[in-house]
Amino acid sequence: MQKIVLIGSGNVAHHLAQALYDAGHQILQVISKNKANASALAQKVNADFESDLGKIKRADFAIVAVNDDAIAEVASKIKKLPVAHTSGSVSVENTAVFYPVQTFSKGISLELKEVPFCVSSQDKAFEKTLIQVAKSISNKVFKIKEKQRKVLHLAAVFACNFTNQMYTIAEQLLVESALDFEILKPLIAETANKIQANDPQNAQTGPAKRKDLQTITNHIALLEDKDLIDVYKLISNQILKQE
Amino acid sequence: MQKIVLIGSGNVAHHLAQALYDAGHQILQVISKNKANASALAQKVNADFESDLGKIKRADFAIVAVNDDAIAEVASKIKKLPVAHTSGSVSVENTAVFYPVQTFSKGISLELKEVPFCVSSQDKAFEKTLIQVAKSISNKVFKIKEKQRKVLHLAAVFACNFTNQMYTIAEQLLVESALDFEILKPLIAETANKIQANDPQNAQTGPAKRKDLQTITNHIALLEDKDLIDVYKLISNQILKQE
Repeated sequence: MQKIVLIGSGNVAHHLAQALYDAGHQILQVISKNKANASALAQKVNADFESDLGKIKRADFAIVAVNDDAIAEVASKIKKLPVAHTSGSVSVENTAVFYPVQTFSKGISLELKEVPFCVSSQDKAFEKTLIQVAKSISNKVFKIKEKQRKVLHLAAVFACNFTNQMYTIAEQLLVESALDFEILKPLIAETANKIQANDPQNAQTGPAKRKDLQTITNHIALLEDKDLIDVYKLISNQILKQE
Repeated sequence: MQKIVLIGSGNVAHHLAQALYDAGHQILQVISKNKANASALAQKVNADFESDLGKIKRADFAIVAVNDDAIAEVASKIKKLPVAHTSGSVSVENTAVFYPVQTFSKGISLELKEVPFCVSSQDKAFEKTLIQVAKSISNKVFKIKEKQRKVLHLAAVFACNFTNQMYTIAEQLLVESALDFEILKPLIAETANKIQANDPQNAQTGPAKRKDLQTITNHIALLEDKDLIDVYKLISNQILKQE
């Protein structure tokens, strides 16, 4: 059981605080400038609420779960405790990494047990502690190097943000033709489901995969937006070049 | 209950035959040049097997579930029956459309009840029959126009094939850095899951969404493949421009 100070009160902080509390750790304090969010969170996990970082309590360590661009400043103000942050991309000296590889949204609850946690620290004793803590809340804990984390975060942008942009484009195309986005939802679910057990390259289907240049030409003719034409051509060409 | 001749013995033909049979329709014949696949399928749904289109039986209608580039030729050889094909993109004169919007793979079974079927025909009586048949195997049946079907198929390429290409890129990046693709699977599942109940544009997260140009610059610096740099820039710019 660890005594933890949690800094931040956003989606990641909420999910982490609850899971750590449920796993038997003690959240001593929730520190955040957002009083409403933070005091509600503190109450839920039986912690004190504080808005002044200068009044941080003595704990085993602190987790900084704030926006990427605020991490360095927050970490620099914590002198008494080992510090870990939850970001996939930020590097801060003397700060360990406790990175849950997932997209967290307000109001959408998640089974943290299935969320991979990537841990790294230059301080090997602290790294060991963080791995134990990660294992207490997740079944999927990975020790990774700094360079690996940066690549992982980049890959996550393709797998999550860019994928979501493909959904956005698809929805816009449907709406412009008075079609219901509901029609594509089972396809989207199955496309994601397929790669849980199959290599994505092997799971590929569609006109570019079967080198059906006629359909590709027809599709490009249907598109009016130059950006969409560029996206269509670029990704189709990538698939055409494969294998 | 309809008497149906099924032409083809691939993934779509297999899924359709089984569902139609289970719904109480009679599959009179499975016609295909692929003897092994087709005779196995015919046996499963208590149908006759035939390889010669000239020997097609009198039925209520025929469903052509063959590769896109073979549909026109097959349909032209069927003179005695109304014909529908299962393609999202092909248009053949005097041929109706019975298009299941899903990605079918060998060995992956699917709940057809949840697969949207898009139906259209110039023959309104036949269209009505097809809608009834679609409703007997699926809860999600849509009557669509020709132009709508083409846009829908284009949108499906973005939502399925291009999304799968994003997974492929993500996996390649991980493999090059000795990371396990397993780390991204929960994120991929949750990204697809989120848009089942949320508008994809609202569900967007990540560096481009929060206009974090520093992270975007760092990511581009990590990429070595020119194609991937182009994809990264193009899609990020699209997200940056939104709202």
